[in-house]
Amino acid sequence: MPRNRQTVGVGLIGSGFMGRCHANAFSAVAGLFDVPVKPVKTILADATVDLAVEGANALGFERATSDWQELVNDEAVDIVAITAPNVFHEPIALGAIAAGNTVYCEKPLSTTVESALKMTLAAEATGVVTSVGFNFLRNPMIKLAREIIGSGEIGKITGFRGRHAENYMASSDAPHSFRTEPAGGGALADIGSHIISIGRFLLGPVTAVFGDCTTIHTSRPIALGTMERRPVEVDDMTLALLKFENGASGSIEANWAATGRTMDLSFEITGTKGAISFTQERMNELHLYSTGGRCSGFTKIESGPEHPPYGQFCPAPGHQLGFNDLKVIEVAELLEAHATGKSCSVDFREALQIQEIVEAIAASSRSGKWLRV
Amino acid sequence: MPRNRQTVGVGLIGSGFMGRCHANAFSAVAGLFDVPVKPVKTILADATVDLAVEGANALGFERATSDWQELVNDEAVDIVAITAPNVFHEPIALGAIAAGNTVYCEKPLSTTVESALKMTLAAEATGVVTSVGFNFLRNPMIKLAREIIGSGEIGKITGFRGRHAENYMASSDAPHSFRTEPAGGGALADIGSHIISIGRFLLGPVTAVFGDCTTIHTSRPIALGTMERRPVEVDDMTLALLKFENGASGSIEANWAATGRTMDLSFEITGTKGAISFTQERMNELHLYSTGGRCSGFTKIESGPEHPPYGQFCPAPGHQLGFNDLKVIEVAELLEAHATGKSCSVDFREALQIQEIVEAIAASSRSGKWLRV
Amino acid sequence: MPRNRQTVGVGLIGSGFMGRCHANAFSAVAGLFDVPVKPVKTILADATVDLAVEGANALGFERATSDWQELVNDEAVDIVAITAPNVFHEPIALGAIAAGNTVYCEKPLSTTVESALKMTLAAEATGVVTSVGFNFLRNPMIKLAREIIGSGEIGKITGFRGRHAENYMASSDAPHSFRTEPAGGGALADIGSHIISIGRFLLGPVTAVFGDCTTIHTSRPIALGTMERRPVEVDDMTLALLKFENGASGSIEANWAATGRTMDLSFEITGTKGAISFTQERMNELHLYSTGGRCSGFTKIESGPEHPPYGQFCPAPGHQLGFNDLKVIEVAELLEAHATGKSCSVDFREALQIQEIVEAIAASSRSGKWLRV
Amino acid sequence: MPRNRQTVGVGLIGSGFMGRCHANAFSAVAGLFDVPVKPVKTILADATVDLAVEGANALGFERATSDWQELVNDEAVDIVAITAPNVFHEPIALGAIAAGNTVYCEKPLSTTVESALKMTLAAEATGVVTSVGFNFLRNPMIKLAREIIGSGEIGKITGFRGRHAENYMASSDAPHSFRTEPAGGGALADIGSHIISIGRFLLGPVTAVFGDCTTIHTSRPIALGTMERRPVEVDDMTLALLKFENGASGSIEANWAATGRTMDLSFEITGTKGAISFTQERMNELHLYSTGGRCSGFTKIESGPEHPPYGQFCPAPGHQLGFNDLKVIEVAELLEAHATGKSCSVDFREALQIQEIVEAIAASSRSGKWLRV
Repeated sequence: MPRNRQTVGVGLIGSGFMGRCHANAFSAVAGLFDVPVKPVKTILADATVDLAVEGANALGFERATSDWQELVNDEAVDIVAITAPNVFHEPIALGAIAAGNTVYCEKPLSTTVESALKMTLAAEATGVVTSVGFNFLRNPMIKLAREIIGSGEIGKITGFRGRHAENYMASSDAPHSFRTEPAGGGALADIGSHIISIGRFLLGPVTAVFGDCTTIHTSRPIALGTMERRPVEVDDMTLALLKFENGASGSIEANWAATGRTMDLSFEITGTKGAISFTQERMNELHLYSTGGRCSGFTKIESGPEHPPYGQFCPAPGHQLGFNDLKVIEVAELLEAHATGKSCSVDFREALQIQEIVEAIAASSRSGKWLRV
Repeated sequence: MPRNRQTVGVGLIGSGFMGRCHANAFSAVAGLFDVPVKPVKTILADATVDLAVEGANALGFERATSDWQELVNDEAVDIVAITAPNVFHEPIALGAIAAGNTVYCEKPLSTTVESALKMTLAAEATGVVTSVGFNFLRNPMIKLAREIIGSGEIGKITGFRGRHAENYMASSDAPHSFRTEPAGGGALADIGSHIISIGRFLLGPVTAVFGDCTTIHTSRPIALGTMERRPVEVDDMTLALLKFENGASGSIEANWAATGRTMDLSFEITGTKGAISFTQERMNELHLYSTGGRCSGFTKIESGPEHPPYGQFCPAPGHQLGFNDLKVIEVAELLEAHATGKSCSVDFREALQIQEIVEAIAASSRSGKWLRV
Repeated sequence: MPRNRQTVGVGLIGSGFMGRCHANAFSAVAGLFDVPVKPVKTILADATVDLAVEGANALGFERATSDWQELVNDEAVDIVAITAPNVFHEPIALGAIAAGNTVYCEKPLSTTVESALKMTLAAEATGVVTSVGFNFLRNPMIKLAREIIGSGEIGKITGFRGRHAENYMASSDAPHSFRTEPAGGGALADIGSHIISIGRFLLGPVTAVFGDCTTIHTSRPIALGTMERRPVEVDDMTLALLKFENGASGSIEANWAATGRTMDLSFEITGTKGAISFTQERMNELHLYSTGGRCSGFTKIESGPEHPPYGQFCPAPGHQLGFNDLKVIEVAELLEAHATGKSCSVDFREALQIQEIVEAIAASSRSGKWLRV
Repeated sequence: MPRNRQTVGVGLIGSGFMGRCHANAFSAVAGLFDVPVKPVKTILADATVDLAVEGANALGFERATSDWQELVNDEAVDIVAITAPNVFHEPIALGAIAAGNTVYCEKPLSTTVESALKMTLAAEATGVVTSVGFNFLRNPMIKLAREIIGSGEIGKITGFRGRHAENYMASSDAPHSFRTEPAGGGALADIGSHIISIGRFLLGPVTAVFGDCTTIHTSRPIALGTMERRPVEVDDMTLALLKFENGASGSIEANWAATGRTMDLSFEITGTKGAISFTQERMNELHLYSTGGRCSGFTKIESGPEHPPYGQFCPAPGHQLGFNDLKVIEVAELLEAHATGKSCSVDFREALQIQEIVEAIAASSRSGKWLRV
């Protein structure tokens, strides 16, 4: 039974892949979730007026602008969604916070811990609701993993074996981009942050790290389609060892040159009484081993209505959620938080802490020593 | 670059699971596909005014009605989407066709071949665009399978081993519903039609069938939560052998009492030079064996942008599509057909032919003999 | 603690692949199992003296002969192992039985039901111990499947979905051999018999069959390396429907032209409370679904010491058994039966009944009607 | 065509699990491989005369002794196989070397690098053939992996992600044994050595290591069935980062408290043009990704006769090798080396180098710094 819903105005900055993804999630959420407020796609901002108008038209926004400051200060805007390049996250977020808006920012929160800290403090000072787009955490299977761990079913956690491996930079001819900028770039920051966010979500705080960052391709073309190359200053692959506050030890790998892997965001978590294994490549499955069972092997748990909010999307198991559904779940949580003032599960503070781990791993790699976080 | 799009009015009948699914697809399609016309959710009809108003509010329709005849005849409605119970498909579709609307009907087309034929002839007489919701065919992996077969890569097709197995009626306490009505009910009609639709889509016409229909639970509760039971007149499991026009032999199983299976809509297709294997339980993967390769095993092909229209949803492989995305693809094809007059891949004629195979299998089971289709 | 063991003399006829396989099993068994009698490799017979001498030397037999009659009548021989071509099974077995030997015969028992019946009656008249080499049944995982079914854990069995698919005759240039002889040849007899033996072992008697036998390649070279071809009179692929005495319905496929499959001897067994799935391609795993569990998926059970006689081979799970180990298990059972007079799990009578099903399926295919078995 | 084979006498020390495994391999090898010399099981030594006699009887040795010195000096013994506890490896091996025997020693070579070095130098001084039982390397799939890497098919190797995880010490009630002795014990030495041996076999020398050794259960019962506990001084889990001479970076995990894992001796090797993935839990499969292919996924290569020496065991793919077959392959190589003087692939020198890496990882863990090897 839907509540009598008020509307909230959404201002979106950026209309690239993640911009479209946000827009679609705002379109779909009210038909799938019983959200307390109903989003209205109010203004879209992009780098130029032409881009903005085109984006607004394609994505169903009422108005368009090339001036994000106009957007964040517009009366009709309640929620500001930031999918602009990483270097713009800080100024836009600070502007949106100053205007009292709820802020929904794509990951990483910013390009440096220093910048991310400034954003976090500003948000906390004003008390606005914040959310950062670590969408993989929205998967009901990840939530189920957390519940299983929390219930004690697999005992005390002893090990975490994580990985985020993709192949989109595997070729030495994959060109430079914002992803290879020294500030905030590299495989560790770009995708390692996902597996770190999962480690924290499931096991809690990390207390120490040891890192080994490697640049596999030491030069890349300056742009697509050119022969001219310049040196690479960021990592293609990072291996790291972790210590968790709960006593577990672990390792992670962040690798964007992992030939053959499209989305091996995966982990195995070992406890004294069981284990959990997962890969995003089969995101509708969680594999559970529990010593309480009579059998010696892992059980494939298939995503279904018993794993909320799967049931918002499909009435029966086996149908399967897709990537875009994760974003809808993220937006549903955002709207709930906006209406109630509750925190989002990845707010600016949490995103800051993920980024601190990223920087500590990189610093450890330079020093060759364990670093406390 | 989006075309300058006109709008089309959508009237939806029914607001249950499939109704929501249609509504969401109409909401999402214009943000994801460059569709020639943009759908407007105009009227929602349901059994009572209260249900209709509530559904229209939840799903974002402008108006509500308890009278589907009013809906199909409304000036503002161009496309009629039918998700009402199967027994209403015929009268609603005939009404919508008479009013000149494009008709988008959930499967099965109707409860009998006779009724489905009447609907098909009416549609063909007026020339309206029709589409039937065999959504699993919309999966880019299924389309890829068809392309591989068409290219000759796996040689002449010799075998088709298909199955649609779920467990939603596995308990003898799963109650009667419209699914167990003698007219149009049973596992063969309900889910066997999906694997038949895939067989036809990939291998072409079926020329002969031999069926064996079994009722596993001979009585079921008359409704959920009651002890009173009445006999079951439909099949829980059907096994059938098929002959295809292209010379291949095959078998299918339709089983809604398949304990342990949530969505094993699966097949293995064998050719003289290769083979293809698929299950909906891992809908973002197609497994291909090709004798041209150096290796003796199957290759896991992961769904990605090179398999249209995956790229409309996600920019890179590994992200994965979900069930609801299949419905969006179906609606995108419908809008293209509506605008251009092209046929949809499952129009009333194709759905009728699927239903003819369903009835032939059931008749063969009764006679114990092969039946020509 | 080994018993004080007597020795038994083994006479082996044939030194091809299966002959080597038998010889190795007789060599290994006493070091792995606490067998009541210890086999001595006494005489090897083959088609010529040269072949026999070479085989005896390679496989460690004391003597060699080209005359199987000499072998079966030799005082020192207690067990006769027959791996000669199928057409010789009957005369050799009858000779061995007449001499009072235990007889260990490779499958199929013979080329026709009539011949197999004659062998069975002869064995039963004299009371000699017999065993037929359906080695896949020796897998501890198959034994476990039988125990699970017998315990009632997966409820009343409703469905059997079996297959034996390989690719060794997939090419139309794979030549004729004894396997394509009209008497006793074809995919159904050659490999279909394996999946039938598993069906009987796990579910019990088959009461009716419906078959569809297909010849995919209508001619083949008369021998390897020649262009000359002659027509094929046997099936490459057989699909069949089965009715079991316990009320279950099922289907099987026997296919030796299954491009891409090396040993898909597989089944899924569905019960009202659970399901079991297996493939010989991963012979150390059994997948079990049980509604008593908290999870919606299959559990991978890995072969281990808790599944006898795995522990005779390896002390811990994960090490894995291989094909040749199955033959050792078969020989261990044979020696136990030889010493105690107990029946082997596949004796001549059981092998005869498997063959009766094979012939009934073929006859049903010709008549287009269900046949009682 | 077998060569005219001479015999060699085998003396085996120890009749526990690995002793039986050796005995069976010596029994089976001549029937499966065309070995240049044929082993005769001459003497078995064990801790007491009773144990030795019983073992000799069970495993088919001609004589028994409780004095290994008698065994190594016996005229009839050519090959000494050592499966005694690790602390006896050095004295026995030195005695066998002094007597001029070929020495076949179970892993680890010894309890310390110092001891292993002494053994290696002694063997090299006399020139006897040596082999150490790293049996997992004998898998044809591992050999295939090496060939693929050597061929350049997957390009320059950039990453190695290895693991050996089992659960046999996962319970805190699993008692102390020789495996938990400070000298030579712990998960790293016991099973980490396997994944290190694979790393070296496939990628070549390791140049630097960083280790993190963890004791999960800080006390264990002093023996099975007692409540009395004493502290544990060895690691249950070790995580390590590696640098290879070929430029690749990698990580390994050795974990004998990995609840849910029976034999996850696994790796993924990433190259600039492809990747290879393997786990011993499915030891008859190698998964290969090659950018030369048209597909985006891994291909499952099934073990078959095209991967020597698989064909010595089974004539067709799909049958599968088991653990005990690996030992037969190891013994076949040993006999070839014995007859020709060629090196075995893991001789004392290679085993010493594996052990040096083990000790370097442990030392690095204590120092918190990278160590050169």
